[in-house]
Amino acid sequence: MSKFQRLIRFEDPQGQVHYGELDGCNYRPTMDHRLGLAIFILQGSLEVLCPIPYTPIIIGVGLNYRKHAEEAGFPIPKYPVTFTKYADSLAGPYEDIPISEDATQLDFEHTTYGIFQGELCIIIGQTCKNLSPADNPLDYVLGYTAGNDISSRFWQIDRDRSGGQHGYAKSFDKFAPIGPVLCSTSQIPDPAKLRLKTTVNGVEKQNTGVDDLIFDVSAIIRHLTRGRTLRAGTVIMTGTPSGVAAFENPPGWLKDGDVVQIEISGIGSIENRMVFEY
Amino acid sequence: MSKFQRLIRFEDPQGQVHYGELDGCNYRPTMDHRLGLAIFILQGSLEVLCPIPYTPIIIGVGLNYRKHAEEAGFPIPKYPVTFTKYADSLAGPYEDIPISEDATQLDFEHTTYGIFQGELCIIIGQTCKNLSPADNPLDYVLGYTAGNDISSRFWQIDRDRSGGQHGYAKSFDKFAPIGPVLCSTSQIPDPAKLRLKTTVNGVEKQNTGVDDLIFDVSAIIRHLTRGRTLRAGTVIMTGTPSGVAAFENPPGWLKDGDVVQIEISGIGSIENRMVFEY
Repeated sequence: MSKFQRLIRFEDPQGQVHYGELDGCNYRPTMDHRLGLAIFILQGSLEVLCPIPYTPIIIGVGLNYRKHAEEAGFPIPKYPVTFTKYADSLAGPYEDIPISEDATQLDFEHTTYGIFQGELCIIIGQTCKNLSPADNPLDYVLGYTAGNDISSRFWQIDRDRSGGQHGYAKSFDKFAPIGPVLCSTSQIPDPAKLRLKTTVNGVEKQNTGVDDLIFDVSAIIRHLTRGRTLRAGTVIMTGTPSGVAAFENPPGWLKDGDVVQIEISGIGSIENRMVFEY
Repeated sequence: MSKFQRLIRFEDPQGQVHYGELDGCNYRPTMDHRLGLAIFILQGSLEVLCPIPYTPIIIGVGLNYRKHAEEAGFPIPKYPVTFTKYADSLAGPYEDIPISEDATQLDFEHTTYGIFQGELCIIIGQTCKNLSPADNPLDYVLGYTAGNDISSRFWQIDRDRSGGQHGYAKSFDKFAPIGPVLCSTSQIPDPAKLRLKTTVNGVEKQNTGVDDLIFDVSAIIRHLTRGRTLRAGTVIMTGTPSGVAAFENPPGWLKDGDVVQIEISGIGSIENRMVFEY
């Protein structure tokens, strides 16, 4: 059994990093919120960090919602479609996301670059391989959190730049902010009952249940242990529901300074500002 | 400057792991070969290990040889096409490669599963990001070695199983054997002069120069540092020349017990037996 329910990782005003149990707060914690259990009441400001300090790899699942697959014009996949984001794409729930010139390179407008995708994330808690039908994949889950699977439009959309491989466009440093709370499976017995809402500069872009998943959490984890080792600390981004920027008309690409907020009920919200580096 | 020229990593008969400089041997070292410099003359047998004990990630480059792109029927890419193999796919130069039932799953013949691809590999020696035109990417290279980019036919070839994403088919545990020698850049000033030869059970399958690379070593490394951190220890598989199994007629899929040997001039040869686990 998990030793926590709603875990946050944070830095105190003296620069020390702590883990703590969050009590009764669905949203961005501030110094006004009560932090329970192991953690003293903080008198100063605190900085909520990425709930895990490091990940071996981030694995994304594409086209995992029926409506999203339909709006993208793709057939419903027979197996989970997976790609990777490098470990350095991990970022905290309120960090600025640096947008390298290389993420927009040759884009003639040069003011637009990205795709945001709000996603439910699974953090693996125990290394596993070849899970059998007798194994319960949820036993290997540390918890759930919210995430934004950011992509570079330039590298992802055009097949002649990426060869159709998605990972490169998604692996810029800090293109996978997650958090703020890591909820144990006891707190979220059925992820399909969660709701996900994404806003850009306060304007709602996605507002949907996490209930039309094609492959559920157990099916995804089983798939990721076929003949291979799924390491503790791995982040699995389970795919995005409908309504992402690329399929708006005209497409809702992100601009310098845009703030993307992704909220999942029971987990809270992450909020990241896109900061162009050039 | 590199502190080694031709490095091997090996386990002595007492089970201790050492690094050593290899002197005057292009091929699989045995106890008959002389190991120089820091290493004593071994009296017993030694086991040559993967030249690096761990990798953060393995990055493959697809369609990076003109002839291979042509035989695959794909246009010449404008940028390097990249995918990843998980860290646990790393294996030693003479290790058996376990073939999980999931690598062949649903294959009606159930005797065939794989694609071998002999490739020149780059090992990154120093973490880098955003290399500028003034930087020499070769300064960040630890050395070169040989590798086999093994894929599961079942998961890679059919788009409706993988969604066209290559990484999953290539990320079974131990699907990336490399070695045996790690050659410093001083030993291989121009990789385009190397020759690569692949045999399966002694029958030649690839025999070609490493000279029709579309993107050379420097271009690949620059591409992999665009807005992202390329970590020391990363293995880059630079792509395969023409002649791989999938494009033979009929396709030359691997079978249980097949031994694939990949030899690169000046580096030596790796030799791995495919061992079905079911």
